[in-house]
Amino acid sequence: MEGLAAMKRMVILSGGQDSVTCLYWALARSEQVVCLTFDYGQRHRRELECAEKVARLAGVPQQVVNLGPLFTGTSPLTDHSRQVEHYESVDVLPGGLEDTFVPGRNMLFLSVAASRAYVEECDSLVIGVSQEDFGGYPDCRESFIKSMETTIAEALDRKIEIETPLLFLDKKQTVELAAELPGCWEALAHSHTCYEGQFPPCGECHSCLLRARGFDQAGKVDPLLEGIQNAV
Amino acid sequence: MEGLAAMKRMVILSGGQDSVTCLYWALARSEQVVCLTFDYGQRHRRELECAEKVARLAGVPQQVVNLGPLFTGTSPLTDHSRQVEHYESVDVLPGGLEDTFVPGRNMLFLSVAASRAYVEECDSLVIGVSQEDFGGYPDCRESFIKSMETTIAEALDRKIEIETPLLFLDKKQTVELAAELPGCWEALAHSHTCYEGQFPPCGECHSCLLRARGFDQAGKVDPLLEGIQNAV
Repeated sequence: MEGLAAMKRMVILSGGQDSVTCLYWALARSEQVVCLTFDYGQRHRRELECAEKVARLAGVPQQVVNLGPLFTGTSPLTDHSRQVEHYESVDVLPGGLEDTFVPGRNMLFLSVAASRAYVEECDSLVIGVSQEDFGGYPDCRESFIKSMETTIAEALDRKIEIETPLLFLDKKQTVELAAELPGCWEALAHSHTCYEGQFPPCGECHSCLLRARGFDQAGKVDPLLEGIQNAV
Repeated sequence: MEGLAAMKRMVILSGGQDSVTCLYWALARSEQVVCLTFDYGQRHRRELECAEKVARLAGVPQQVVNLGPLFTGTSPLTDHSRQVEHYESVDVLPGGLEDTFVPGRNMLFLSVAASRAYVEECDSLVIGVSQEDFGGYPDCRESFIKSMETTIAEALDRKIEIETPLLFLDKKQTVELAAELPGCWEALAHSHTCYEGQFPPCGECHSCLLRARGFDQAGKVDPLLEGIQNAV
């Protein structure tokens, strides 16, 4: 492929739809891509296996950082005694801050990633945040990302860019982007999204509902579900 | 004591001279103090025992966060196959960035602390950085702290102050401050500083030399060394 930048990019790869799309976005435009996956005791452990599978499929080196039970607080993603909310449809999702908010998660992920990027001499970090479909999480907004970028430069005395290809995209547009990126569609069949960590996905949590709406609105079948149907 | 603020402060307590002084600075001015200690595989493991001892002595709740071998890179503080530099005296310390720099350490510590502070409803984080005696570490400068404070507010949608009582003090002034804070001097006898993690301290690493100069210039005997002499 022509015109690949000499930039070295580090992608934060959770194994979900957004980060998988970011990985292929990075692969389409840079010579060197590495990825970083966080194990923070998340309820959706399957995400980790998905991330490993996708990294292998994409042929990129992956570092898995085990943060242990680092996050305290009441998010059902990290406090497994709590229930993940289920909804009848995407239309009844509440507004405002979701109770799945893990305080400081992206700040912490980007701090660790910046430290690794410094050592590995990466030029940028790529993270799949979106301020469109973001569950009210404050650390998915542009103002946070801009501030974090400045903080990283101050902390390290080195500029490391934070790239957010999905920042202004809704899930429909993210699906359309994925469809255009070489290799991405196949990889999405191995991605994960469900907050419950279920496979097949529960179809009723915030994350499942948003993913389903995105594919619906883009008029495409989710390759993850297609894979399940074919297997049946 | 009169005039204690209703503020709840979280002190990042490494167990070294600076953070112990910060703990007593916080105790002198707030009703509620908690502390947070990081185990990041540091060479100077004794620091952790010191932090526990000081927290107990001060009667403050302590959380110890195990980050495991989170930091990569070439700092001899985290790469134990490397040697800590020794110097004949404080006068021959090199300028510029010390090779002990752990990239992103304070950014990461403050990110974790902010997440915990959010959950525990603390109003401020207290950290013992100083831009006077700082080994060239960029994450000990005011510009980093200010930026980090903004980033935390953006990430959490809540203002949590970062207080840095030592930011503009050199080690002599830090010793003078400690001498004025009730209980602090006694606690310093249990503090740790040596990068080698030795006890008695090696006396020849960057950290030992700066500590010794501070007590010298303040015309006081380091209670840590006094304790050793009394024990002999």
